[in-house]
Amino acid sequence: MEFKEVVKARYATKEFSNRKVSENLMNELKEIIRLSASSSNVQPWRIKIVSDSKTKELLRPVSMDQKQITTCSHLLVFLADIALNKRIDSLEKLMVKSGSLPASAKSFNDNSRNAFGNLNTTRKISWASKQTYIALSNAINGAKSLGFDSCPMEGFSPKDYHRILKLPNNLIPTALVTVGYAVDKQRSKIRFSGKDVFI
Amino acid sequence: MEFKEVVKARYATKEFSNRKVSENLMNELKEIIRLSASSSNVQPWRIKIVSDSKTKELLRPVSMDQKQITTCSHLLVFLADIALNKRIDSLEKLMVKSGSLPASAKSFNDNSRNAFGNLNTTRKISWASKQTYIALSNAINGAKSLGFDSCPMEGFSPKDYHRILKLPNNLIPTALVTVGYAVDKQRSKIRFSGKDVFI
Repeated sequence: MEFKEVVKARYATKEFSNRKVSENLMNELKEIIRLSASSSNVQPWRIKIVSDSKTKELLRPVSMDQKQITTCSHLLVFLADIALNKRIDSLEKLMVKSGSLPASAKSFNDNSRNAFGNLNTTRKISWASKQTYIALSNAINGAKSLGFDSCPMEGFSPKDYHRILKLPNNLIPTALVTVGYAVDKQRSKIRFSGKDVFI
Repeated sequence: MEFKEVVKARYATKEFSNRKVSENLMNELKEIIRLSASSSNVQPWRIKIVSDSKTKELLRPVSMDQKQITTCSHLLVFLADIALNKRIDSLEKLMVKSGSLPASAKSFNDNSRNAFGNLNTTRKISWASKQTYIALSNAINGAKSLGFDSCPMEGFSPKDYHRILKLPNNLIPTALVTVGYAVDKQRSKIRFSGKDVFI
């Protein structure tokens, strides 16, 4: 399917059937997410994947009781990673391992620490969260391109997710993507016209 | 091209040739961006498209002197629109015009105003900016799917862009996407391995 057809066909599914997305397809989706763009390639994110019913049952009440949480096949919790200097150091090592010149990798590290590593916590969360939305976008388009459905969701309690999923302090829940096979049907897309978007 | 091939082939172009992207292709790209997902479908964004050399010359010095700004065909400036209640009211009207029941549209308006309209300015900017990154992601994937190149960019002065582009106060520059035809070649993608991303 051409990308523009993917974008047209994707919609926020309100309820999923209980059919599981296969491990193969989930691996393909994870690869699409993993290759997402990010500012300076810092990739300041982790994605917690929840597929067991028990955890999904625990999460639904702190997700505005939305049906997608328990009817989806897999729940992807997008997490902003604000331990940025650690991430930048790991990336420097990975760059060298991947063939970058050590001096270029070091220069990347210095520039990135300078740009992001010294932000205060609020700004770190804000910056890293924005990057996760690029990966989230690949997740929802990716699911449709692979033949299944998704719903991006912000209606949940990050604090309760943090507690229930026993996350470390540097990982901040920013958004959810539930994936699976839709029970509902796509309705017509309502979007502002071009003249109300492009100026 | 399948979406996963688009994701693999897309990369942050460092320099573009002077070849223009045709109006037809730009219209297709705009359609892909226009159909982007957003939280509660509020679409809190505008995109300023700059294609004239004079404005690009003015913007380059306040964009860390990056070559993409003046060598690209079109520069897309993603703007978070923080006049959220106005956007929500317009959307309510559009919903009714598109066939939604007036009561559902009204309920959408109440819920959205409640969730986003009462945020303070900092949180409005933060929330709306995140949404623009979903549209930005469609822009960079969209360009590649249509056969041209792009570079997403954060290295610029929002304040100077605001002044130079004479933007109203409710529109906050959040990120750029330059598009055109690359002079450089894609290098191998460096990404964290699955075990460093999915937990």
